[in-house]
Amino acid sequence: MFYAVVLAGGSGTRFWPKSRRHQPKQLLDILGTSPLIKQTLDRLEGLFTPEKILVVTQAEQVESLRRHIELPDENILTEPEARNTAAAIGLAALEIQRRLASDAVMAVLPSDHHITDPDVFLKTLLIAKEVARQNYLVAIGIRPRYPETGYGYIELGEPLSDIGYQGIYRVKSFVEKPNMTRAAQFISAGSHLWNSGTFIWRIETFLEALRRHLPKLYAGLKQIEQAQMEPSVLAQIYPALPQISVDYGVLERADNRAVVVGDYGWSDVGSWAALGELLEKDEWGNVKRGEVVQLDCSQSILYSDQALIAAIGLHEMIVVSSGDAVLICPREKAQEVRKLVEQLEKRNLSQYL
Amino acid sequence: MFYAVVLAGGSGTRFWPKSRRHQPKQLLDILGTSPLIKQTLDRLEGLFTPEKILVVTQAEQVESLRRHIELPDENILTEPEARNTAAAIGLAALEIQRRLASDAVMAVLPSDHHITDPDVFLKTLLIAKEVARQNYLVAIGIRPRYPETGYGYIELGEPLSDIGYQGIYRVKSFVEKPNMTRAAQFISAGSHLWNSGTFIWRIETFLEALRRHLPKLYAGLKQIEQAQMEPSVLAQIYPALPQISVDYGVLERADNRAVVVGDYGWSDVGSWAALGELLEKDEWGNVKRGEVVQLDCSQSILYSDQALIAAIGLHEMIVVSSGDAVLICPREKAQEVRKLVEQLEKRNLSQYL
Repeated sequence: MFYAVVLAGGSGTRFWPKSRRHQPKQLLDILGTSPLIKQTLDRLEGLFTPEKILVVTQAEQVESLRRHIELPDENILTEPEARNTAAAIGLAALEIQRRLASDAVMAVLPSDHHITDPDVFLKTLLIAKEVARQNYLVAIGIRPRYPETGYGYIELGEPLSDIGYQGIYRVKSFVEKPNMTRAAQFISAGSHLWNSGTFIWRIETFLEALRRHLPKLYAGLKQIEQAQMEPSVLAQIYPALPQISVDYGVLERADNRAVVVGDYGWSDVGSWAALGELLEKDEWGNVKRGEVVQLDCSQSILYSDQALIAAIGLHEMIVVSSGDAVLICPREKAQEVRKLVEQLEKRNLSQYL
Repeated sequence: MFYAVVLAGGSGTRFWPKSRRHQPKQLLDILGTSPLIKQTLDRLEGLFTPEKILVVTQAEQVESLRRHIELPDENILTEPEARNTAAAIGLAALEIQRRLASDAVMAVLPSDHHITDPDVFLKTLLIAKEVARQNYLVAIGIRPRYPETGYGYIELGEPLSDIGYQGIYRVKSFVEKPNMTRAAQFISAGSHLWNSGTFIWRIETFLEALRRHLPKLYAGLKQIEQAQMEPSVLAQIYPALPQISVDYGVLERADNRAVVVGDYGWSDVGSWAALGELLEKDEWGNVKRGEVVQLDCSQSILYSDQALIAAIGLHEMIVVSSGDAVLICPREKAQEVRKLVEQLEKRNLSQYL
């Protein structure tokens, strides 16, 4: 049995002003095709029937989510509030275990990434599933294209050649976001992969690791499971669970770890700057969406829902007009949009969140 | 008798997207106080009764104009279409002559400039009136503060000391917009003033100059006058009049010219960049209007009617959100907003004009 668990609880403040509190990044049609979560689910269709796909989201977003996806109601797991990935994945693992008598493998997938080659993606999942059957905690790693400081990295250990495929390694270490110097070293050495946030493991392997490395979190989740996932118990216990990522709480501490190289055109669509890689450009390197007029602009992202964007002399800038707000920032500062959103919270401008 | 003629026919495309076809610059409350035309008329109150104030505008704008000003209907002269300043001033001169048996002086005033010291302004007009009585075509000149290439300049001749005031000179020449090198020379030499577009002359002096230097235009206007300014005659003849500025058509060619120095805090509010001089700044030199949040911005103009402007890392930039459009450009390119407006025309995006 092979299950897919899609994590859809993120708020994606880096895509403000298009992403809002009730319209997080995964529900947005940022690339002009369909919402990222829908793309994620469509991509899984070749390998998973709808009953085998679970989505974990937070209560605040569940209503908007239902509008975008077609899944059996019982396959949407609702966190009373977001408690980071270890809790969300643990909840899903116990839910799958509860439904099944037999053993199963689960793939944990972000809901808001972009993949250009879905076939290779699915093949990679199948290979990772075979590795997971041997009791590894498996991550999909991406060959780094540039020294990104916004990602975690996976240090390659010895190849696991007995599985019969190329590109499978033991993991030497999981590395949290490095600085630029270190990231550049990783790349020139060829020793590290980007951590794509996609994981594959046997439910039993994972729950055992959770029990060992995050015993409090595990105990809390078991209480919820023993109450048959009863919503009132969930609402009482879940919000008090340790808030920790699966990378930091489990993977950095475990030893039975493997990585499978994924070569399927991956992007985490991490900020407005990413659109420069994913969308078509005009002859001056500008990405334009919506009504745009420009003079002497280059390498800029000009993105509008509705209003006309009129730009003169912009270079490597981002302009996003969405609803009642407009964002202007240099491409290299795209990550700082988060800080602006924090400022809106502080200044009680929550109508814009 | 002293009349004021306010020229209110400009379209002010440099303030797009706030200025639109039916909402030209002079009708806008750009400085957050009241529309520029209203400020212009209020300023004249100390010296002119309403019957002595004429406003010349074009048919397309007369309705919006009436909503902003309180003047007798017959004191709003409507051009069937804009034909530049020589025609507009000539029309007003003949209208005043028609109403009066006796001789009069007229002051010609732009409707969309800003003046910080109205008292000094009115005193300057009174001095200029005395000079005009001696049959001079009088311009008000402003001591240049920087080498602006967007203005015309007035080259100073010998002082006219017999009038009894400082700061009155014969004019050696009117100079059209110079390049930067020349503008810088004018300033270092102290030989030139900015042409503020404010003129004072006896109606007879002006009509005589018009007759001599623009005989066709004069003849056309006389035909209109002889038909008692009958609208059907106006509509037939006026649109065919030579389209020429009073500076180029009359002042550059005349010889009885004088200039009075005006020191009353003048600004032509010529583009969005001018707001940097006229409005209060925050501690980083940013001018902000409307709902604005910013991180690491300096020397920028962030101006919104309605939408939230959220800006990161902008330096010497202009952002204007007004209605259904948003403009982004470097301060030094503020003059190029015109070109954008031309592009909107070409691309049939007239809903934004």
